[in-house]
Amino acid sequence: MVKEVKEIYEKVEEFIDTDKEIKLQGWIRNHRKQKEFGFIDFFDGTYFKSVQVVYDNKISNFDDIQKYHVGSSISVVGKVIKSPAKGQLFELSASEIVLEGDCPEDYPIQPKRHTREFLREQAYLRPRTNLFQAVFRVRSVAAFAVHDFFQKNGFVYVNTPLFTSSDCEGAGEMFQVTTQDLEEIAKKGKVDYSKEYFGKKVGLTVSAQFEGETFAQAFRKIYTFGPTFRADPSHTPLHIAEFWQIEPEVAFCDLNGIMDISEDLMKHVIKYTLENAKNEIEFLDSFVEKGLIDKLKTVSSNSFKRVTYKECIDILKKADVKWQFTPEYGEDLAKEHERYITEYFNSPVFITYWPQKVKKCFYMKQMDDGTVANADLELPGIGETYGMSQREDDLEKLEKRIEELGMNKEEYTWYLNLRKYGSTEHSGFGIGFERLVMYMTGMDNIRDVIPFPRTPGNCEY
Amino acid sequence: MVKEVKEIYEKVEEFIDTDKEIKLQGWIRNHRKQKEFGFIDFFDGTYFKSVQVVYDNKISNFDDIQKYHVGSSISVVGKVIKSPAKGQLFELSASEIVLEGDCPEDYPIQPKRHTREFLREQAYLRPRTNLFQAVFRVRSVAAFAVHDFFQKNGFVYVNTPLFTSSDCEGAGEMFQVTTQDLEEIAKKGKVDYSKEYFGKKVGLTVSAQFEGETFAQAFRKIYTFGPTFRADPSHTPLHIAEFWQIEPEVAFCDLNGIMDISEDLMKHVIKYTLENAKNEIEFLDSFVEKGLIDKLKTVSSNSFKRVTYKECIDILKKADVKWQFTPEYGEDLAKEHERYITEYFNSPVFITYWPQKVKKCFYMKQMDDGTVANADLELPGIGETYGMSQREDDLEKLEKRIEELGMNKEEYTWYLNLRKYGSTEHSGFGIGFERLVMYMTGMDNIRDVIPFPRTPGNCEY
Repeated sequence: MVKEVKEIYEKVEEFIDTDKEIKLQGWIRNHRKQKEFGFIDFFDGTYFKSVQVVYDNKISNFDDIQKYHVGSSISVVGKVIKSPAKGQLFELSASEIVLEGDCPEDYPIQPKRHTREFLREQAYLRPRTNLFQAVFRVRSVAAFAVHDFFQKNGFVYVNTPLFTSSDCEGAGEMFQVTTQDLEEIAKKGKVDYSKEYFGKKVGLTVSAQFEGETFAQAFRKIYTFGPTFRADPSHTPLHIAEFWQIEPEVAFCDLNGIMDISEDLMKHVIKYTLENAKNEIEFLDSFVEKGLIDKLKTVSSNSFKRVTYKECIDILKKADVKWQFTPEYGEDLAKEHERYITEYFNSPVFITYWPQKVKKCFYMKQMDDGTVANADLELPGIGETYGMSQREDDLEKLEKRIEELGMNKEEYTWYLNLRKYGSTEHSGFGIGFERLVMYMTGMDNIRDVIPFPRTPGNCEY
Repeated sequence: MVKEVKEIYEKVEEFIDTDKEIKLQGWIRNHRKQKEFGFIDFFDGTYFKSVQVVYDNKISNFDDIQKYHVGSSISVVGKVIKSPAKGQLFELSASEIVLEGDCPEDYPIQPKRHTREFLREQAYLRPRTNLFQAVFRVRSVAAFAVHDFFQKNGFVYVNTPLFTSSDCEGAGEMFQVTTQDLEEIAKKGKVDYSKEYFGKKVGLTVSAQFEGETFAQAFRKIYTFGPTFRADPSHTPLHIAEFWQIEPEVAFCDLNGIMDISEDLMKHVIKYTLENAKNEIEFLDSFVEKGLIDKLKTVSSNSFKRVTYKECIDILKKADVKWQFTPEYGEDLAKEHERYITEYFNSPVFITYWPQKVKKCFYMKQMDDGTVANADLELPGIGETYGMSQREDDLEKLEKRIEELGMNKEEYTWYLNLRKYGSTEHSGFGIGFERLVMYMTGMDNIRDVIPFPRTPGNCEY
């Protein structure tokens, strides 16, 4: 009877101290050998906790088994018995252990503490470690929680294109795509766009927002959840070239409405993950960020504060703090200001209605007082996490803004047409999914929450 | 009390013929005017069916309302009343109608039959039509069903990278990515890879399989669901350059096991979609593919046949049919053969164990008789839908095959290492999600089941 470790843990009373023989298949994480006994720390990837497999010299291939290396795959037949060892309820008393795939001793993942930098270089093996079993299961569970939230609330999932000929915000940071041979371009000394697959210059999208808006004007509530790209040359623990974004767009929704949705989403994802990746979060709480569970429970069960940018500057100016950067109306907030504000309220804070000259995105709704209808969510401990805004729905104002910023209006014809054909008050936001996973795992480098991170000079696998 | 159309339909008894005033926000799909009355066919994107809004000249802005164009966004306050009209249970008797966003008469989507080709040119507006409301909601619901299936069965969702320096199968059809200016390369007459973001030649992945396998060797059961790319120059109703693929990989799983998973997935997705996009599927059954519902119900409630390639050739040879292509052992199956086989069994059919010389992928498990442990799923009415295989887990055999095919072994070091470090019997498959959506909607062109299709020469939006 082939079983998974998950099933044994979840229904242990059906197996323990019965005479049922079960079969497990998985890998050896550690192997302690004694003269007449052996103990294998065994995992199969289905459950965070491993199983202790105990065997003795009554087993026919005892001498062979004692040679099985860490990292090998094995199948084990045996009975689940109450464990005499401390800290574990049960163990598997083996009657048969078969080697499925050997693992030589040069295997890079040994039962000792490896640095995260070392494991990053072994990205294809690191998911076999406890730490990355935890991180990547949390990532998976959280991703499902995102879909679950939106689908249950009637949002339509839209797969917007990655190839794009429109620019969104980050023109300078766009990766270009080509089907021409670069060497050939160099040899010929000219670029022939007619030879390109698309017949023109095409890049990889930096945001799904604009295409998302077209669907919001049809389905009212939509979300995207897919990869986006930025050729950002920064070497920081927060930047990667390829990352996943969640970008909802909602018609008939103002700034308050989108803050509600954003807050509800955060809380749902955190609660769902706490429930469905319990062992993993407990491990991360113990070994990565002490207090992680408390932090997540607090954030997911209290209202987020909402305060205007102007009120924030007032608070900062009144504060008895020696600032490195003096807070000023009309200036951006520094990290120290963000930190002070979240500590002041002891809560996540939406900072709303920023001056247009600080938040320059042309698509944010312009208010009469020189601010825009936007909000940044500041989380205790990390500061600005992501932004949202009501989108400008007035065709004339939007066109004027595009002209002011010296952008090419022709390129935005279809986007502008959304304001011409049945325009609505509408809003949206964009969360970098990796940032959310970092927050929920306590990991401090974005390279460690995505399977194969892409950074300047790094594109292995 | 602001409501969505979905809520009214689902809880109509709470609203109908009560004195509750509700407010709806949405768009005018059609507008019939009479001297003392008006009828607006109103939708808000939350529900497939629209609401008939009725107003009369007792309303203060009656004359203005009568000028509201198709495509305009409006908000309506009124009461839900039993409808005297045939074919609808209720209508909304309006006491207030406010224009939110006008829509000039050059609006391309008018209440008449538009061709799909015309709508493809208006890709940013087509989701407002009945047909594309149906198609894109089915797509969204089916996507969720995919996640739901895998998560409930303990699979880990893995976001494999799109930037890749490894080749998988389709080298010739890979899009290349660059951060160099092509014009500058042409001017300088040489390619300087040190100026590239990644410092080397990088392309967009054609499959997540290899990276997926690394996670299957850690989590046992994983799936990917994300975009992949192929610079395929074919102009056919089945080819696009950017499409979404579902690629599960499972350790300790043989060909039979992966066929089970694949069959269960198909059935779950179909059943879930039939239940959760009922109105949409009914519409598609009436207007796109007669018999769609019967087809889907039959497929999702019967076992798929499993038959070897050799048995298929035997059946084809015995058939009393004048073939265009004579069926031969060792040759690929033609469309006419696939059709015959699915009709012969009147069922989806897995055709298993193909000759290695027909299925050349180097990673398929080699059997002793010259076949590989693979299967193609053939669906009635469309033929080959997707393939799956047990992966070669024997390091020596895999290396030998790579050499035979003249591939560069160095490039596959980490992939080969998966067979060195605790190799397992493992299997996987890849479904093109758009093909699945085509099957479930009856749409016959892949360009019409993805929001913004990318094909040779086409990259708008």
